[in-house]
Amino acid sequence: MKSIKAVTYPVHFQDKAYKELSNLITTNNYSTLFILVDENTMEHCYPKFIPNLETDKRIEVIEIESGEINKNLETCSGVWNAITELGGDRKSLVITLGGGVITDLGGFVASCFKRGIDFVNIPTTLLSMVDASVGGKTGVDLGVLKNQIGLFANPEMVIVDTDYLTTVTDREIKSGIAEILKYGITYDLKLFNEIKHNKDLDINSLIYRSIEIKNEVVLQDPKEQSLRKVLNFGHTLGHAIESFYLESEEKQNLTHGEAIAIGMVCECFMSAKLLGFPTEKVNEVKEVVLSIYNKTHLLKQDFSAIMELLKHDKKNINGQVNFVLLNDYQDYKLDCKVPEELIVESMEFYNL
Amino acid sequence: MKSIKAVTYPVHFQDKAYKELSNLITTNNYSTLFILVDENTMEHCYPKFIPNLETDKRIEVIEIESGEINKNLETCSGVWNAITELGGDRKSLVITLGGGVITDLGGFVASCFKRGIDFVNIPTTLLSMVDASVGGKTGVDLGVLKNQIGLFANPEMVIVDTDYLTTVTDREIKSGIAEILKYGITYDLKLFNEIKHNKDLDINSLIYRSIEIKNEVVLQDPKEQSLRKVLNFGHTLGHAIESFYLESEEKQNLTHGEAIAIGMVCECFMSAKLLGFPTEKVNEVKEVVLSIYNKTHLLKQDFSAIMELLKHDKKNINGQVNFVLLNDYQDYKLDCKVPEELIVESMEFYNL
Repeated sequence: MKSIKAVTYPVHFQDKAYKELSNLITTNNYSTLFILVDENTMEHCYPKFIPNLETDKRIEVIEIESGEINKNLETCSGVWNAITELGGDRKSLVITLGGGVITDLGGFVASCFKRGIDFVNIPTTLLSMVDASVGGKTGVDLGVLKNQIGLFANPEMVIVDTDYLTTVTDREIKSGIAEILKYGITYDLKLFNEIKHNKDLDINSLIYRSIEIKNEVVLQDPKEQSLRKVLNFGHTLGHAIESFYLESEEKQNLTHGEAIAIGMVCECFMSAKLLGFPTEKVNEVKEVVLSIYNKTHLLKQDFSAIMELLKHDKKNINGQVNFVLLNDYQDYKLDCKVPEELIVESMEFYNL
Repeated sequence: MKSIKAVTYPVHFQDKAYKELSNLITTNNYSTLFILVDENTMEHCYPKFIPNLETDKRIEVIEIESGEINKNLETCSGVWNAITELGGDRKSLVITLGGGVITDLGGFVASCFKRGIDFVNIPTTLLSMVDASVGGKTGVDLGVLKNQIGLFANPEMVIVDTDYLTTVTDREIKSGIAEILKYGITYDLKLFNEIKHNKDLDINSLIYRSIEIKNEVVLQDPKEQSLRKVLNFGHTLGHAIESFYLESEEKQNLTHGEAIAIGMVCECFMSAKLLGFPTEKVNEVKEVVLSIYNKTHLLKQDFSAIMELLKHDKKNINGQVNFVLLNDYQDYKLDCKVPEELIVESMEFYNL
């Protein structure tokens, strides 16, 4: 597949990507390569990656614990200390090999180490291939608040190799499908329809088109002043729900995709009430979502805690929550205010 | 005094600066102003600052504990949590009111909060006026390693009001004098001579000229690829000595200026041995330094620990320590390698 040119860096695909990585390492003459993994990608992805890495540079592997719960400043401190003890300097390169936690945290760690060293993202989950690894957002959570601490920083290169997807669970694949649905609903309905109708998805082409779309949006508005906000469709309420389940000790966590799929159904419902988004399309989105994900029963007694988390969404200004809503498929409206009762009503609709 | 135009922001002086700040706040329509102070600037500077701040915006004060020992990620977490709990959003403004710890840490905190919010620096010590508050470096220490974590980020404005200097101790003023000596030795000998000869210094003009010099250097090389390294004269060994005293529990800490003054004497000595910097000038620098600062006796048994810290200097590449040395006054050479024995010898020379 043809490489995609992002703001300041290329996205390379499959086998030829590794040649590009070797070239980058030679050209920039890095002093040491720090490969950031978690216990899963160490076991399943690293053995596939390392034979592809042609270099005589020193390689050091830093392993962190997997899971959103570890995407925090304490983990960053651990990685910064490890890089320091292993003699990392300003000419070191960080290679992130993993899902969104690894790419987001690794990009942040690299960007703040000695005021910034280079990094390369190698996403190994569908979610990180179509979302986290492209677009320049790096960061970690603060308590349960997702990505509260972070910055815009671009990698030197992103490598998308779908062979890594054989290493992840079905549930993780589905987590990524939610982002592809989002691109479909807001930007290119073909993606939505393909997922709706097809049992045998051509995952390579879905990934490629998703990255193209995300890249188009980000190129026009890298710092999320306006257009880029469209990528938050489903995420405003979805993030709050994800945080709530992450915070709750009795409840099983939701994946990011499971949470934003709920968010998309709810935000379609809000769109119908506020912008006249067609009701049959609300039902269609809900149907597709429920054909992919088990239904999560949102408890009434949890609504107020979810609303509280919503108030800390990064996009809020002056305590006002801002939603991306839809006039129609592929026709969105940014910065919509939604009355609290309607947000609650939308969660009740999802529950029906 | 005339405002100085830095890379992307102005440096305003004395009373007129506050008008500019009010304009900035009105123009950008910030949602909340977060003023970052420590217990000292809260007591001595805040009461002077606040009557000058003409605004109807919500003001929240966040106080951290003073001291380099608190310039770390734990303090950042505390501030990030405080801003979050106080409803900080992307349109919030952070105003740092304090010395280098406050301006460095506050700039870093602002730059990473929700991927970056605006900040304004109001340095209240001589050191932060002539150094920390201008140039775009933000960050915190990792253990004893100074500024190991951080990034380049520019404030919206810097306000230099020398009235704040009446609130700080003589020892703190002297800490700033070391940076002015550095500008003198490396860039504009007039500054060095003025300090050497004058009992009654015109501190306003020394500050103004120092900021001009720093700004000239930073404008040419904002990310410290080459020229900007000159600002590290005295700092390579000086930082290691400062870190060593910070780390040691029995020893009293040195101020930044005390440490880099020792660093400058030692690096002049190295310059004489390696580049033919005139010996009488080494002695002159040592004399001026010792006329300002009490002599610190560096113990032989501490040399190896200091050398170890030197190996973690941010400017090192491939474990090689890089010094800025002098051919002559105002004539420097970047990226000099110095044999370990000569570094030790230079500390022995300082001790003499």
